[in-house]
Amino acid sequence: MTENVLGTNMICQVGLVVPDIEKAIDGYCDVFGFARPNVSVTDDYDSAKTSYRGKPTFAKAKLAFMDFGQVQIELIEPIGEPSTWKDGLDGGGYSVHHLAFFVKGTDDVVKKLEEKGIAMIQQGHYTGGMYTYLDSSKKLGVLLELLENF
Amino acid sequence: MTENVLGTNMICQVGLVVPDIEKAIDGYCDVFGFARPNVSVTDDYDSAKTSYRGKPTFAKAKLAFMDFGQVQIELIEPIGEPSTWKDGLDGGGYSVHHLAFFVKGTDDVVKKLEEKGIAMIQQGHYTGGMYTYLDSSKKLGVLLELLENF
Repeated sequence: MTENVLGTNMICQVGLVVPDIEKAIDGYCDVFGFARPNVSVTDDYDSAKTSYRGKPTFAKAKLAFMDFGQVQIELIEPIGEPSTWKDGLDGGGYSVHHLAFFVKGTDDVVKKLEEKGIAMIQQGHYTGGMYTYLDSSKKLGVLLELLENF
Repeated sequence: MTENVLGTNMICQVGLVVPDIEKAIDGYCDVFGFARPNVSVTDDYDSAKTSYRGKPTFAKAKLAFMDFGQVQIELIEPIGEPSTWKDGLDGGGYSVHHLAFFVKGTDDVVKKLEEKGIAMIQQGHYTGGMYTYLDSSKKLGVLLELLENF
């Protein structure tokens, strides 16, 4: 077993690169009932001193944050390049598959999500419970997973 | 403001679809110092009763779980098809950009990560602090972000 290099294993944020932040916010607010979050823009180079691969970059990004318990979802729409945000839009990393939530009454939650145009796509059982994946990819860019233990 | 459809906003898990689960585990254990997690395989159809788009599917997946505080990272390597796991490998959703951690002493953490072949790629300031992105994409499939508030 090696050292934990970061000195922490508390994930505080998951960052999603999105092509259109307003559309992304529409989807998250509709499903999670958030008040519409503010969209901020990263600072200009003069104050942000943004560097990319060791060189200054004037790239910026539109940002919006939503709290999901311990974890914050950060939506990121790149402005200009080069930046890791722009690189993210081109993909290449592991694909995020789902955001999971423990729920009670899967059938009822599925029905409510279906009313929002989010259809059940895959379901299965595991020892002690069941999982349900819903096709929220158009609205949220990722699948939702409902976990229910019996 | 609309209803929170799920009745909860506590994300409990982030699922990453990966092409090679053993290689993915190598990377996560090296950086976070985890004991190597067990790899399990989802149950056969007889007990899992897995359905995909309303029809039974014999697709399975290799799974590994690692705890990151409130949030669990689930690594998923698809076996066979059709499944949302296999779909995930083909992409299409929002791209996950980073996993973020609050740290103290960014320079020291950056140095330790660089010793593991994870180079700093982008850095910038915001009001009250700074962020650093590191290119952990080969080892972790996503970028790491260090957040440090002053």
